[in-house]
Amino acid sequence: MPVPDHSYRPAPGSSSAHTASAVPVYEPDKDDLVFSFGGVDWRWRVRPGQVFEVFTEDCFCGRLRAVTDLPSQCIEYPFVNPQTGPFYVEGAEPGDTLAVHLVGVEPARDWAVSTTVPLFGALTSSKYTPTLQSPLPEMTWIYQVDLQARQVLFAARDSDHQVSLPMEPFLGTIGVAPAAREVRSAVVPEAFGGNMDTPEAKPGATLYFGVNEPGALLSLGDGHYRMGEGEVCGVAVEGAMRTRLIVEIIKGVYCEWPRIEDDDFIMVAGSYRPLEDAYRIAHTELVRWVAQETQLSLMDSYQLVSQTSLPRIANVCDPNYTIVARMPKRVLPDVSWMGGAHSRLRAS
Amino acid sequence: MPVPDHSYRPAPGSSSAHTASAVPVYEPDKDDLVFSFGGVDWRWRVRPGQVFEVFTEDCFCGRLRAVTDLPSQCIEYPFVNPQTGPFYVEGAEPGDTLAVHLVGVEPARDWAVSTTVPLFGALTSSKYTPTLQSPLPEMTWIYQVDLQARQVLFAARDSDHQVSLPMEPFLGTIGVAPAAREVRSAVVPEAFGGNMDTPEAKPGATLYFGVNEPGALLSLGDGHYRMGEGEVCGVAVEGAMRTRLIVEIIKGVYCEWPRIEDDDFIMVAGSYRPLEDAYRIAHTELVRWVAQETQLSLMDSYQLVSQTSLPRIANVCDPNYTIVARMPKRVLPDVSWMGGAHSRLRAS
Amino acid sequence: MPVPDHSYRPAPGSSSAHTASAVPVYEPDKDDLVFSFGGVDWRWRVRPGQVFEVFTEDCFCGRLRAVTDLPSQCIEYPFVNPQTGPFYVEGAEPGDTLAVHLVGVEPARDWAVSTTVPLFGALTSSKYTPTLQSPLPEMTWIYQVDLQARQVLFAARDSDHQVSLPMEPFLGTIGVAPAAREVRSAVVPEAFGGNMDTPEAKPGATLYFGVNEPGALLSLGDGHYRMGEGEVCGVAVEGAMRTRLIVEIIKGVYCEWPRIEDDDFIMVAGSYRPLEDAYRIAHTELVRWVAQETQLSLMDSYQLVSQTSLPRIANVCDPNYTIVARMPKRVLPDVSWMGGAHSRLRAS
Amino acid sequence: MPVPDHSYRPAPGSSSAHTASAVPVYEPDKDDLVFSFGGVDWRWRVRPGQVFEVFTEDCFCGRLRAVTDLPSQCIEYPFVNPQTGPFYVEGAEPGDTLAVHLVGVEPARDWAVSTTVPLFGALTSSKYTPTLQSPLPEMTWIYQVDLQARQVLFAARDSDHQVSLPMEPFLGTIGVAPAAREVRSAVVPEAFGGNMDTPEAKPGATLYFGVNEPGALLSLGDGHYRMGEGEVCGVAVEGAMRTRLIVEIIKGVYCEWPRIEDDDFIMVAGSYRPLEDAYRIAHTELVRWVAQETQLSLMDSYQLVSQTSLPRIANVCDPNYTIVARMPKRVLPDVSWMGGAHSRLRAS
Repeated sequence: MPVPDHSYRPAPGSSSAHTASAVPVYEPDKDDLVFSFGGVDWRWRVRPGQVFEVFTEDCFCGRLRAVTDLPSQCIEYPFVNPQTGPFYVEGAEPGDTLAVHLVGVEPARDWAVSTTVPLFGALTSSKYTPTLQSPLPEMTWIYQVDLQARQVLFAARDSDHQVSLPMEPFLGTIGVAPAAREVRSAVVPEAFGGNMDTPEAKPGATLYFGVNEPGALLSLGDGHYRMGEGEVCGVAVEGAMRTRLIVEIIKGVYCEWPRIEDDDFIMVAGSYRPLEDAYRIAHTELVRWVAQETQLSLMDSYQLVSQTSLPRIANVCDPNYTIVARMPKRVLPDVSWMGGAHSRLRAS
Repeated sequence: MPVPDHSYRPAPGSSSAHTASAVPVYEPDKDDLVFSFGGVDWRWRVRPGQVFEVFTEDCFCGRLRAVTDLPSQCIEYPFVNPQTGPFYVEGAEPGDTLAVHLVGVEPARDWAVSTTVPLFGALTSSKYTPTLQSPLPEMTWIYQVDLQARQVLFAARDSDHQVSLPMEPFLGTIGVAPAAREVRSAVVPEAFGGNMDTPEAKPGATLYFGVNEPGALLSLGDGHYRMGEGEVCGVAVEGAMRTRLIVEIIKGVYCEWPRIEDDDFIMVAGSYRPLEDAYRIAHTELVRWVAQETQLSLMDSYQLVSQTSLPRIANVCDPNYTIVARMPKRVLPDVSWMGGAHSRLRAS
Repeated sequence: MPVPDHSYRPAPGSSSAHTASAVPVYEPDKDDLVFSFGGVDWRWRVRPGQVFEVFTEDCFCGRLRAVTDLPSQCIEYPFVNPQTGPFYVEGAEPGDTLAVHLVGVEPARDWAVSTTVPLFGALTSSKYTPTLQSPLPEMTWIYQVDLQARQVLFAARDSDHQVSLPMEPFLGTIGVAPAAREVRSAVVPEAFGGNMDTPEAKPGATLYFGVNEPGALLSLGDGHYRMGEGEVCGVAVEGAMRTRLIVEIIKGVYCEWPRIEDDDFIMVAGSYRPLEDAYRIAHTELVRWVAQETQLSLMDSYQLVSQTSLPRIANVCDPNYTIVARMPKRVLPDVSWMGGAHSRLRAS
Repeated sequence: MPVPDHSYRPAPGSSSAHTASAVPVYEPDKDDLVFSFGGVDWRWRVRPGQVFEVFTEDCFCGRLRAVTDLPSQCIEYPFVNPQTGPFYVEGAEPGDTLAVHLVGVEPARDWAVSTTVPLFGALTSSKYTPTLQSPLPEMTWIYQVDLQARQVLFAARDSDHQVSLPMEPFLGTIGVAPAAREVRSAVVPEAFGGNMDTPEAKPGATLYFGVNEPGALLSLGDGHYRMGEGEVCGVAVEGAMRTRLIVEIIKGVYCEWPRIEDDDFIMVAGSYRPLEDAYRIAHTELVRWVAQETQLSLMDSYQLVSQTSLPRIANVCDPNYTIVARMPKRVLPDVSWMGGAHSRLRAS
């Protein structure tokens, strides 16, 4: 499903892995962009334990570059939210879990873009919550990015208010091929990960995905230079990104829903509707995970999670909504979560 | 609606305002406890600008004191979540807004309690999300409280895991008489406030409630010594509390939904079901509030909120769920929110 | 909470019970209209076994009489959906169930009205599902009613399409005082009944409500001359109504949620959000009811309900949504549901 | 994705189209069964205007044949709900609509089966609405089918209650390849149709699906001999089916959501969560359809739909829930819906 026409111009000869440095770089040509999880052949093979770098286009295929560019004019659904991948991870088999450690997630441009999109977002009627009302106006905001100061600049469209906001880059979308041979649009988050839009997919985090297809078929994209939690209007401060990552396979363990670990927290991402079901998914998985890996009983785990969890709303705008349950590790018995994968990858 | 029988014993002669110090103290006798917002006569009158102190019982009327005490044996619905109040605020008229600044919220005991309650909580079927399954076990946890170290001690019931958790006291329930002469159980949050279970009702915060009845009829209770966000199991670390507060009336301005302000954030609490509707309520109100008080257009406000808001899940267990939209003031034009009430009350 | 000003003019001397005929008639004066369930003193006393007649105003207090009359101009919230009552039923005590048999529900006028109401209805954003969009137009439709032919006439506003629709009168609102001393606006349906907007509240039906307050405090109103299921736009073909009814008390049995019985079906009304929770409430109650009154096990009841129930969507527009689970009696073991109350009242 | 092992034995030589009679018969071999919409190559080609017959297995691949057979023992997810197809319809192009008229839907066996499935169904926690509770018991019911009397026999498992229920056969699942190259499990309903579980997919009905892939790729299965509306326990009276159908292509018209038409009603199926969103989808599409094809304005259409629509709850158990909006044609201006496709196909 190649994107039919776009303005993105990769560097010459950049369409596959560079090995000039010790770190292979995967930079997709325009025809390499994919718009789904599942349903496409792998583009590159990667080995566990090898750091590699991935270039990802922004969610608009790089085509919105001025406030006069509008999504409805520049983008043709379903060619939105392009992903780089899929990566075939050597040794990954269905029933395993793929651990993906994000070494670095860095903006690849000095500008970013946000918009409103007609009938998309949390504070408008939408495709799946329709009404008979007229849509909100479609507008575009361009953010100048100061890569040194690590700031993005909000400039109001209808007044002269401007304010610098901290750059807090993360990947809006990351995941593997879905279970049951499903193929899902890259705008959808579900058990396979995908468009979760969680700021927890940030440098220093390790994400765990249950493997459904040989090679896991990892894809990533939708870089956000920053975002309010929930992605209220449906669009973050969107930009192309360079991500360094390293993967590991946990054999014979299958995560039903994406798990995330950083130095301080274990987390579970639940994605569904209504939003309370996303919350229920994330928290039942978290409570059971704690009970499985510690000596805490299920009810003690439920109680301790109840008093200490710090969930974050990831998105309330995509076809499924996402909530990330977050549990501070320091209040839990000292165990090696997921067999210690995060610590190992962090040290790489 | 007095509580028919309970073990709470107030100090002798404590049933109304003390004036020994400069700060009047309102300590309810057992017959003064109320279990609703609206529907009861005011108990005390308070004046804007006067700091006063309020004792509130815990949500179990102080009757659960050992791990062998169970809610189903000690508590008779609807006599749960007792409130102290209502306070008649002199000068408050329907159409005004009541600003309530929490000067201090301090534990009144050196122990606290949490439980599971059959068919209550986010990870069980419940009265309003029923299934045919059996309920989870009913269990009680007692937390020892170190008031000096400001820690509460979690002690597992089924293993020997123990861990100290920071004391982070707040009021689970605070609000005024509802609109349209409704009377709501004290376990319900809605536009009048009530059982929002948000950690933002903490010392240093100012809460704004639209006034529906003469005197506003402020009540508070449900002290939490700490809580994970969302109150997953339906019960926080519950304890009696002493709260110092001061109120102000904002004439002729009516907040449709509770607003909260502290030194860093302006916030709106939305409470309804499904959870995305709580999110929508909180964020539409926040976006409109920003647009009303600044020179930002509605769409610029929507965009800036989208990139900077930090909402918190308050509860996913009560009859209505609560989400608090939170916007950092520093990214917004420098205005005096709500006429500067927070700054004035903070300085009192 | 009297309605402050309205155009309704009752017949002279009509403000309380008539006893000229064998059937007492309760016709409220304008100051007798109530706008809540709970929170008001009873107006009249009725005896079990005595047929009586009740006049109810339409949901707009009779003030919308032409297509140029708009709700936002003629009605002041919360003075909408006026109820006639409360009726104190002699002998009804908390913990009992009140059986209300509708002998007749007949239009009291030869016209009726429907409208759109800004930010109310299923296909618009609303108070509890807000967006930033503009509301739909506010419009009024007047229906001419042919009482002989039992037809109402839809006349399009923007074209000349007209069509006669069968008159199918029922009460949109009927219920008792809520539990836990709550007082709810008359636009809300919940466990006490209220604004369920179910066409099953029709002549020949018996409704069962758990009694929460002495005398039960029955109220009724919101006559609908006809309605599509779900009340999509939020307003039915609304009209004043004359209802003949007879009540019975079932001692020591308490229905948690409203039950309805007619000659062919047993039914349960569940009212909450999201809509699947209304469905869950209605169907868990139905499955348990069948298992309790027959020799069917819970799982056999679940199976038989699954293959034969014919639920109806009642409303998807009110503060709570309502679904009515409906089970044909003929497929069930032959038992006297609710002690045979429906049969007895039907025969009266 | 062939089913790995099952007991189904097709008649010898039955694996492709029979042309002995005028009606081609498509009878899948076990390796022909598919478990998704999209993602598989077409199996057979069909021509518009040609009646053909399709055999479909039951949702359990025919493996549950006694009350001692349990889904968890006999079925391996995702090999459930097998579909026959996909059928490549000659001439169907993306952007067209495929009209599918069901000439006949007849049971292919004299027995059928229903079960409970752990963590599936409306009255239990489930994969997407999880709790920490234990699942309900897994049980199987076998229904004897009297093909002459057109009755199925419910026999209680835990008592001797038996009752005959009318046979009302329909297809639980029917649809085309999804948009955006998605591939969805055959248990999911969405805009492409799929597992809608609506009794409206019955003999005499015409279903309209927007075409997303060349040939449309029609599949069908999940025959239900009868079902209560909503499919409460998640499983109907399931059985193999023989369906006669005929298709037509409506060029250049694309239905966003499945439409259904029979002699009396026009209908739209909306499938999503929460259930009110399924309701909103179905009814916005219905209101707009009426306004597009008649001279009624959008607001008049909204009003008339509000007073006359008779929606049916299709399922509240699948990954998406389905509601079917139903509008009686006789109250609408006399137009040829969808260009008169239903009338033409009905006459074939």
